Amino acid sequence: MDKYKVVFHIDEQGKASLVLHNINNLIDDIGGDNLTIEMVANSDAVKILLRSSSEIELLHELAEKQVMICACANALRNFEIKKDELLEFVTIVPSGVGEIVRKQASGWAYIRP
Amino acid sequence: MDKYKVVFHIDEQGKASLVLHNINNLIDDIGGDNLTIEMVANSDAVKILLRSSSEIELLHELAEKQVMICACANALRNFEIKKDELLEFVTIVPSGVGEIVRKQASGWAYIRP
Amino acid sequence: MDKYKVVFHIDEQGKASLVLHNINNLIDDIGGDNLTIEMVANSDAVKILLRSSSEIELLHELAEKQVMICACANALRNFEIKKDELLEFVTIVPSGVGEIVRKQASGWAYIRP
Repeated sequence: MDKYKVVFHIDEQGKASLVLHNINNLIDDIGGDNLTIEMVANSDAVKILLRSSSEIELLHELAEKQVMICACANALRNFEIKKDELLEFVTIVPSGVGEIVRKQASGWAYIRP
Repeated sequence: MDKYKVVFHIDEQGKASLVLHNINNLIDDIGGDNLTIEMVANSDAVKILLRSSSEIELLHELAEKQVMICACANALRNFEIKKDELLEFVTIVPSGVGEIVRKQASGWAYIRP
Repeated sequence: MDKYKVVFHIDEQGKASLVLHNINNLIDDIGGDNLTIEMVANSDAVKILLRSSSEIELLHELAEKQVMICACANALRNFEIKKDELLEFVTIVPSGVGEIVRKQASGWAYIRP
């Protein structure tokens, strides 16, 4: 079977727990071997990727399950967040929306909790 | 013409009226014969599918128009909602996000009001 | 390279600045020549397209960059907004959700900030 590819979009800090649990539920349902998952954070949701994040445990767990975690460079600039303030597994992308568009153009599903 | 296939995603109880009217407007615009529609409720939005739902009339109307109404099993478990507390036409899916991913992988459009 | 085609969905008035900046960031990232962008406003978000809009400058800028700006006819009716109250570059579509479905069925990406 082909893998399912899914990009999750989060742009509200208050949605952190919901989105991360959604991703965990998706892995439980479809199985990690059948999934490629990326989470893209932009706007104030990039703050959930700080080393001081209250969601640090679940983020680590998902990173270990090969979920790719991305932060929007524009949002980081707006909130004056430096790369070394982010959790070590975070990838910075030029723009959150650009990343999402490229993924969908390559056939990825899109979920915006 | 091929039918349009659309999955609506609702994960906030407060969006019930908006989402249900969106679906009705879509049917009025494109025509029920040209549409296959599914609504997937997860997180606290599963509560709008209780037999005591304030949106019961519009839900019944949409079910009669062949809109498939799904509830996420994880959310039902979290809120301790039993199957027999749900409106009789509700289908329980293993996970709301898994259902949405499968639909998009089969070419369905996705709308998240 | 084929152009990327993207439809942005806004149905909350309070998201105006976020969505419009998202579109601007997308153009900066991928380049206007490689993009066809449409923004569809429904529900109370049609109010951001009034001639009195607080976002008038950014809306004009995006319209000049060939972003197509659409308003849902159902929402305009609900809020008793007449065509001549809208900014001159706004296109009225029969339903916001119908427009989004048609775009996705033609291969457009969908972003809902």
